[in-house]
Amino acid sequence: MRAVKTGEKTRVAVVGASGYTGEELVRLLLRHPHAELVVATSRQFAGRTLGEVFPRAASYPTAKTLKFTDASPAQIAAEAQLVFLALPHGVAVEFAAPLLDAGARVVDLSADFRVKDATVYREFYGHEHGAPDLLADAVYGLPEVYRDKIREARLVACPGCYPTSILLPVIPLLREKLIKPPSIIANSLSGVSGAGRKAELDYLFVECNESVRPYGVPKHRHLSEIEQELSVAAGTTVTIQFTPHLVPVNRGILTTLYLAPTEAGQDPKRIEAAFRESYADEPFVRLLDDKTLPDTKNVVGSNVIEIAWRHDPRTGRLIVMSAEDNLVKGASGQAVQCFNLMCGYEESVGLI
Amino acid sequence: MRAVKTGEKTRVAVVGASGYTGEELVRLLLRHPHAELVVATSRQFAGRTLGEVFPRAASYPTAKTLKFTDASPAQIAAEAQLVFLALPHGVAVEFAAPLLDAGARVVDLSADFRVKDATVYREFYGHEHGAPDLLADAVYGLPEVYRDKIREARLVACPGCYPTSILLPVIPLLREKLIKPPSIIANSLSGVSGAGRKAELDYLFVECNESVRPYGVPKHRHLSEIEQELSVAAGTTVTIQFTPHLVPVNRGILTTLYLAPTEAGQDPKRIEAAFRESYADEPFVRLLDDKTLPDTKNVVGSNVIEIAWRHDPRTGRLIVMSAEDNLVKGASGQAVQCFNLMCGYEESVGLI
Amino acid sequence: MRAVKTGEKTRVAVVGASGYTGEELVRLLLRHPHAELVVATSRQFAGRTLGEVFPRAASYPTAKTLKFTDASPAQIAAEAQLVFLALPHGVAVEFAAPLLDAGARVVDLSADFRVKDATVYREFYGHEHGAPDLLADAVYGLPEVYRDKIREARLVACPGCYPTSILLPVIPLLREKLIKPPSIIANSLSGVSGAGRKAELDYLFVECNESVRPYGVPKHRHLSEIEQELSVAAGTTVTIQFTPHLVPVNRGILTTLYLAPTEAGQDPKRIEAAFRESYADEPFVRLLDDKTLPDTKNVVGSNVIEIAWRHDPRTGRLIVMSAEDNLVKGASGQAVQCFNLMCGYEESVGLI
Amino acid sequence: MRAVKTGEKTRVAVVGASGYTGEELVRLLLRHPHAELVVATSRQFAGRTLGEVFPRAASYPTAKTLKFTDASPAQIAAEAQLVFLALPHGVAVEFAAPLLDAGARVVDLSADFRVKDATVYREFYGHEHGAPDLLADAVYGLPEVYRDKIREARLVACPGCYPTSILLPVIPLLREKLIKPPSIIANSLSGVSGAGRKAELDYLFVECNESVRPYGVPKHRHLSEIEQELSVAAGTTVTIQFTPHLVPVNRGILTTLYLAPTEAGQDPKRIEAAFRESYADEPFVRLLDDKTLPDTKNVVGSNVIEIAWRHDPRTGRLIVMSAEDNLVKGASGQAVQCFNLMCGYEESVGLI
Repeated sequence: MRAVKTGEKTRVAVVGASGYTGEELVRLLLRHPHAELVVATSRQFAGRTLGEVFPRAASYPTAKTLKFTDASPAQIAAEAQLVFLALPHGVAVEFAAPLLDAGARVVDLSADFRVKDATVYREFYGHEHGAPDLLADAVYGLPEVYRDKIREARLVACPGCYPTSILLPVIPLLREKLIKPPSIIANSLSGVSGAGRKAELDYLFVECNESVRPYGVPKHRHLSEIEQELSVAAGTTVTIQFTPHLVPVNRGILTTLYLAPTEAGQDPKRIEAAFRESYADEPFVRLLDDKTLPDTKNVVGSNVIEIAWRHDPRTGRLIVMSAEDNLVKGASGQAVQCFNLMCGYEESVGLI
Repeated sequence: MRAVKTGEKTRVAVVGASGYTGEELVRLLLRHPHAELVVATSRQFAGRTLGEVFPRAASYPTAKTLKFTDASPAQIAAEAQLVFLALPHGVAVEFAAPLLDAGARVVDLSADFRVKDATVYREFYGHEHGAPDLLADAVYGLPEVYRDKIREARLVACPGCYPTSILLPVIPLLREKLIKPPSIIANSLSGVSGAGRKAELDYLFVECNESVRPYGVPKHRHLSEIEQELSVAAGTTVTIQFTPHLVPVNRGILTTLYLAPTEAGQDPKRIEAAFRESYADEPFVRLLDDKTLPDTKNVVGSNVIEIAWRHDPRTGRLIVMSAEDNLVKGASGQAVQCFNLMCGYEESVGLI
Repeated sequence: MRAVKTGEKTRVAVVGASGYTGEELVRLLLRHPHAELVVATSRQFAGRTLGEVFPRAASYPTAKTLKFTDASPAQIAAEAQLVFLALPHGVAVEFAAPLLDAGARVVDLSADFRVKDATVYREFYGHEHGAPDLLADAVYGLPEVYRDKIREARLVACPGCYPTSILLPVIPLLREKLIKPPSIIANSLSGVSGAGRKAELDYLFVECNESVRPYGVPKHRHLSEIEQELSVAAGTTVTIQFTPHLVPVNRGILTTLYLAPTEAGQDPKRIEAAFRESYADEPFVRLLDDKTLPDTKNVVGSNVIEIAWRHDPRTGRLIVMSAEDNLVKGASGQAVQCFNLMCGYEESVGLI
Repeated sequence: MRAVKTGEKTRVAVVGASGYTGEELVRLLLRHPHAELVVATSRQFAGRTLGEVFPRAASYPTAKTLKFTDASPAQIAAEAQLVFLALPHGVAVEFAAPLLDAGARVVDLSADFRVKDATVYREFYGHEHGAPDLLADAVYGLPEVYRDKIREARLVACPGCYPTSILLPVIPLLREKLIKPPSIIANSLSGVSGAGRKAELDYLFVECNESVRPYGVPKHRHLSEIEQELSVAAGTTVTIQFTPHLVPVNRGILTTLYLAPTEAGQDPKRIEAAFRESYADEPFVRLLDDKTLPDTKNVVGSNVIEIAWRHDPRTGRLIVMSAEDNLVKGASGQAVQCFNLMCGYEESVGLI
């Protein structure tokens, strides 16, 4: 068993903390017993305390004193040992290199370092990658899959919210060859915080409330990282169907997966075994029994992902469903989980 | 062209008017220029006026005077020429036979007469059908498919809310052999009114708000009528995948369909043509262009179903999406549309 | 009894139709049997049909053909007999004068002509009034109070949403001297559409959902017109307390009024009589009985305002409550009610 | 300064844990570093683990093993040192006496021991009090007011949710004679969880969503404890106006208070001083500055109450507003705050 560090704190920074992901990250770090938040940057809020900008965090002592700054990478690296980037994609990449050069470790919550192949990045994000030489170094921050690599990483690329909700249910099945890769269909429903804190008409209350709608059909950017990781698990190139929908909740992603089982996968015991072996000991994966289905309200505010599955004897398909909080297990909670691994703390500390 | 009747009113009754479907039906009939609502029954509300029970209908003159009764079928048939049954399945069947015998025409909004095969009914509903001899007479109340039969019918079985959202998008494709029947996957999201006005914990505000969840996986009762009608369209037995989900809106169903096109169906022009030929002249089907996706907020309160489709060149699949109001096009509006046809009125009167 | 015109249509225009109020107005006019919508202007949407911009209105034939334009007042007046202005305050005033000069009648939904005193306007709106000479001509468009003047008016200033919810319950009590003017406290709760279709962070779904908050404390602009009209009713200058709150619904205003009755007003029969005499015959005022309280869901989508009242024997106060749809009775429905009066149609036509 | 105990845990029980308050309490206790939850009772859920019944608590180790029981008071007292009662009023009283007799300390979240005068209890709750002799012993569990008494109490009566939202803003003003007692008007908006987990039509999603409504006008049960505590603060009998409203959020109470200041209270500095002196050091009272108003979303999930105030120079009134989470500061969080005091722990432990 690994020794778990408990006695000392790690000095951390959050860069670009003004969105929903940044706010959630700040709250998780403020209450984390082993994190000392020393820098938070935001051009928009520079000069104001964390507590003024994020009233929900105002009760933490640090929030009353620490002010947002507009610090440079060099200044940030001088203060913090580990830096979280909560920046838009395309911007995070500009901070990562100087921070790494200055000796900081980096946990990036954007999409900038998730895709290993710069060509794929360009296809899905529409511009050249800003630091392709760093891609090989980056570790995909899905602890249930890359735990050991995350421990040693100096640059972690946290998965997107949709990818997490798809990868954790599907990877065990692909690894065990229990499903046919071309059959994978992922139907995902997301709360509106997934769109970020952006002043756009589409995300006004009146436009989202009493509304249910698909978007990004048929090609969403997250497909690039989803297919990359599913291909690794399958040992072959995987192309999936993925349709995101916007539903009127603040938080939560519910993904329903339609899968064609292989002959082996038609055996319920094999499916059960694949999930149990992968996740029985995972602190943040909750495998549901055969009487229970996932519900986002059971995971919102926590780092847990719920997973359930059903064979349909009428069609022969396997239906797998997951629920997570897009801002926690789908973003900031997972980032803190990676931080715990990187620093040698107990993996779940600060997250339960 | 058919002559359209306009001058005279038809006396109608609503039996079991106390649920959400019944309330919507009452409102549609109260504002209908050719319907005269003469009987509304409800054990629970007997003796109270429509307006007292349904404040939203209180401004209609009839709502101020007409009281709910607990009338028998014979009494109802003595007053009304056409009777709407808004009763639970298994109960509607008890009213239909005596009403028909007494000479009334019947529009049933329950599931009791939708399935032609009493064996299938028993499989999905768990009890013997109460009047199997009436099944042959019943016409499935989907005007876009059975318009002429509805005109002549004495017993119309209005489709369920989910079935309407699936059948209208899929039938044209099956008829033209543009999709492979075994590939059909329907992922549906429904507002909470679909569960009815039932005092159950699962449908409390706090249990539904900020919650997204699947249910009835993998075998929902509506499959019986969906597969029956798809099989008719395909000319072969069709078995589909269908997963309903509950989302926190009052009204609306959004269905996303995943379909494998046949060779012919890979041609976008063929898909477009199939939809245009079927629905270009339909008053309540809105085919969206290639820049627009369905959104329940655009159809709630109306009898319209929106349909859009996209080919996915990456996977070869065809994605078809629909949006409707579960209480209008999915129930009471469709019942009034049938009523208009049965009585020779313009099909859209009272519905726009 | 007045003769009611029914046979001919009036050509109408809507200027600035792109907000929530404009959209609601367009829908009401499209379904109105005596209105012919001939012009709709919107800089933002010029060249697109009404149906493309407002999918909820797309089923009306006119919505399929009529396109938004950027027409000048002269062009508008050449087409339309009566023009609705759904523009921001300060902009509406620029259109009113040339339209009136060109012979059109004008129904203004902005605040520009509600306040009779240009000095008061400047105090509350922060700039000089753009056409103070027109103020004397403008009739405050509250049909229950100014019905006869509205019939003859060439310029109608429709009340704000909050004012309607306060004036209709309070005016009868002030007129009959049943309450003490200085005691009036109005606590109002509004749905988010009241803030308009503005891309501002404060009105994002995530900022409004699961949030309840006061705003504009203690001095809201609507106080200017509220106090003006209450003063008329009281025959003396009235200053009131008014606190608006934002609650997470799309539509609806619920106002709770705290009032100190005069000696006469302590008699429940006097209160009852004041309301009955003022409103028993009003098509859009629903006086509730002593077992029922207002609920916005009972009026949303309709032009009705619900009013209830209770004496509190413990405190001696009179509590009066009202509920309305801020976009209908609080804006566009009331505008159509005024239109009906101005054109000699039945007052409720197109609104039930 | 008081010594703060940290080293040892207190064994606690929760009786009647199946409602929303009970669930929140269980979660707070499971994560509390000094509480060891040893008994949880629920007739309905007896035999099932906490985690099965409350999925949101399922990640806590104790939730995986501890099962609900139907234990008697004697059995509970044998296991636990301190017992929380999360029972309906009228039932809690039956458990309190035997538990106290058996030596347990009791924190009651019902209304049973809040009102000191059994006659007042009967007036407001409609039946005789079940244990009037215990009323003198009970301490009203509002730590900001009764901190020292709570420390020594064997029976604490936690305040209701509405009372907390009213008492904390008003008491400092009454104590300093800055407002006139007869002027107090409290307009409160509550989320639906305040109605409890009851299968009643009124609290269905469809009945609450897109609905805003007052209820309990003019005499709500909570008035009994509110007026009792305000009278203590004022040194004279206080009767207030109070109107609760239901708004469609899960959690949160927003109270807007309308107050007439005394001559002293017209001085903004005196108001500011009264609040600062009472609450500047309170861990759970957040006094807002003059640019910020309370918003329930800033306190939901926390034990914080936000308070802001404004003088209205036009009317002379003082407007005070508060926001809290009805299930935390309004119920279970406050109960844990009392527990911390009773056991000598730091008051905020487990609550930040």
